Amino acid sequence: GWVRSVRSQKEVLFLHINDGSSLESLQVVADPSLGTRDLTFGSAVEVRGKLVKSPHRMQNMELKAETIRVVGPCDIWSFPLKMKERHPLEYIRQFPHLRCRNNTLGSLLRIRSEATAAIHSFFKENGYVHIHTPIITSNDCEGAGELFQIETSNEARESAEKNHFFDVPAFLTVSGQLHLEVMAGAFTHVFTFGPTFRAENSQSRRHLAEFYMVEAELSFTESLQDITQVMEDLLKTATSTVLSKCPHDVELFHKYVAPEQKLSQRGCLFIYFRISYSEAVEILKQAAQAFAFKPEWGYDLQTEHEKYLVKHCGEVPLFVINYPYDLKPFYMRDNEDGPQHTVAAVDLLVPGIGELCGGSLREERLHFIESRLQRYLDLRKFGSVPHGGFGMGFERYLQYLLGVDNIKDVIPFPRFSHSCLL
Amino acid sequence: GWVRSVRSQKEVLFLHINDGSSLESLQVVADPSLGTRDLTFGSAVEVRGKLVKSPHRMQNMELKAETIRVVGPCDIWSFPLKMKERHPLEYIRQFPHLRCRNNTLGSLLRIRSEATAAIHSFFKENGYVHIHTPIITSNDCEGAGELFQIETSNEARESAEKNHFFDVPAFLTVSGQLHLEVMAGAFTHVFTFGPTFRAENSQSRRHLAEFYMVEAELSFTESLQDITQVMEDLLKTATSTVLSKCPHDVELFHKYVAPEQKLSQRGCLFIYFRISYSEAVEILKQAAQAFAFKPEWGYDLQTEHEKYLVKHCGEVPLFVINYPYDLKPFYMRDNEDGPQHTVAAVDLLVPGIGELCGGSLREERLHFIESRLQRYLDLRKFGSVPHGGFGMGFERYLQYLLGVDNIKDVIPFPRFSHSCLL
Repeated sequence: GWVRSVRSQKEVLFLHINDGSSLESLQVVADPSLGTRDLTFGSAVEVRGKLVKSPHRMQNMELKAETIRVVGPCDIWSFPLKMKERHPLEYIRQFPHLRCRNNTLGSLLRIRSEATAAIHSFFKENGYVHIHTPIITSNDCEGAGELFQIETSNEARESAEKNHFFDVPAFLTVSGQLHLEVMAGAFTHVFTFGPTFRAENSQSRRHLAEFYMVEAELSFTESLQDITQVMEDLLKTATSTVLSKCPHDVELFHKYVAPEQKLSQRGCLFIYFRISYSEAVEILKQAAQAFAFKPEWGYDLQTEHEKYLVKHCGEVPLFVINYPYDLKPFYMRDNEDGPQHTVAAVDLLVPGIGELCGGSLREERLHFIESRLQRYLDLRKFGSVPHGGFGMGFERYLQYLLGVDNIKDVIPFPRFSHSCLL
Repeated sequence: GWVRSVRSQKEVLFLHINDGSSLESLQVVADPSLGTRDLTFGSAVEVRGKLVKSPHRMQNMELKAETIRVVGPCDIWSFPLKMKERHPLEYIRQFPHLRCRNNTLGSLLRIRSEATAAIHSFFKENGYVHIHTPIITSNDCEGAGELFQIETSNEARESAEKNHFFDVPAFLTVSGQLHLEVMAGAFTHVFTFGPTFRAENSQSRRHLAEFYMVEAELSFTESLQDITQVMEDLLKTATSTVLSKCPHDVELFHKYVAPEQKLSQRGCLFIYFRISYSEAVEILKQAAQAFAFKPEWGYDLQTEHEKYLVKHCGEVPLFVINYPYDLKPFYMRDNEDGPQHTVAAVDLLVPGIGELCGGSLREERLHFIESRLQRYLDLRKFGSVPHGGFGMGFERYLQYLLGVDNIKDVIPFPRFSHSCLL
């Protein structure tokens, strides 16, 4: 493993060695004669000896060293991480190739790996087929914001628009929903969990150019309740798995990164509120608080509105359902509660983050979307079924779970405008 | 589910309904009066009734229908799939949005999902941390073939090379190896499983522009044997899981798609051969067969050579290790068996496919690669460890497992030159 601390006393040499399998390091006890000049913080060592019960209360085992070999020295003067220092996340972000050796990022990456596995297991155990939806697509799903376009590097150089590699302009996907809808015509439960992209020129703490989405699609589903139940079960399962598998890693965040958020994050294990968009607007209108944007039926909920609603409900996850028809994309199902009045859409709002998931019943009725894309129509022509689905931003989930302020700190290699390191 | 067959007799109406959970359909037995004109092949139905033990030998259960509701009719005249017809894979490839409703593709997608889960489980159970390596990168890993370059769609339109979104030219990744190597400096076992890209202008049965790679990196590894053992265990675990979880789906391929390959594919459950590159060249030189490319030490093994070697060893998976120094990229570890003679590289060759995995020990010694990239050097400066890793083409693996001739038929939405449907 790698040396996390060296403490040399007259009689005994103490090392802490970490191999990345947990936040805790293994204490090595050695004769000072085994120490060398190369045995510094950050160096990689191979230690052989006897694992014995530790006399100290704080640890179970320690290693009585017989040999210590430095397999990779580390120049502590040029190494940007320092022993026993709690580096700010902004500082270590400058070293994309070294920051994983920091405790906080180490914990984050173990949690991310565990959450990923928990999400895969959740869907597998519930009978979902995992679909690798494509990264490169010729679609522009719901025209969501700015797209990345791809060309072969030769084409880019010659800026030859006439001879696309794929014959047509091709983009990086913004969502796997359309491809999951294709699959929902053959499998009743499908999901995907992969990278999605936005070319938004934003330096915000909430946006990345490349981020991960969990998306699911359910066939033979005629109620939003079915969709929100899956979101709720998914969040509960992922969160309780992470809390039980990585208690020390999670504790680090609640201790040093976001002490105040511990309770609110655990809220998602228990209580979920459900209100309609119309109810939400009524609550906002009756609020004592003055909003920068006046709440009004037919307009999008602003961040300030979402925050108020979550607070109003006691800082627990909150489903807002049945949004105005005109606010939502064409494929969402008309509730027929009036002429094009509301659609069966849902957003899940959580404390500190805002929107974590979005979903809807999809419009399966051919005559409601007849003026649309041929392939989308074909899906409705041949054995169309009532279906619905949702997407969850995986990095947003990790931010919520851990109270991490900046989204760049919950992904191994962040990409955003003006930055693509490594 | 969706109707796979309708058989109306005087006294009784038989339906086969499939919901995508398995290759087998559920037989529905109904009074002919429950049938309607809409109840056709391909239509989506909701059937209520009693599940009873079937009197027939071939099935366990059948559903005695009380009500049948067609929730989505299907115009069988324009629907390109036909009842009880075994459509060739080339035919259904024309309908990317409908081919998942075909038996063969249905089985393929269930197997792909199961193999994906098995690979995730294998690494998790062996203590690997799952890393989402980035899709967008400013690196060009080992200059492997043609790259896709990305720009915002605005930039592409204006062909403005001066104002890149990321300030630097950015590409779609060809491998996660470099990013895994970063992580192997903090975790002793890491893996990634995601899409990779090549802009090769190829129409071959073996290449896609977007395909999936399984990649792993192991620290404190000083022998190629450690790496080949992981490859072998991975293949055995994934294959035995798929065979036990999807027996009927696999049988479909061995029955209708590649009858002759059943035995050779199961070979990977048992026997793996290991020879050195030098031994391989000797075997080829002594072969009675005439090769188009004369085998000679220092030259790449050609497809014809790989085929001969696999056959020579009895059509089982074959590791070829220790390749000539000059054939391999800079980061592979010098075996020091002569001045720049061989490196600790390995290829795994399998029957019918050729190279399935490639891996190596990485050169961890600073002075061996001093003339290289600054960040790559930094990794060697600060606690460098002996490490190695490998990559496996996931689609190649599925082709091998199932005997599927064309790689386009083992991925949900194939992308290749001149084609990016959906």
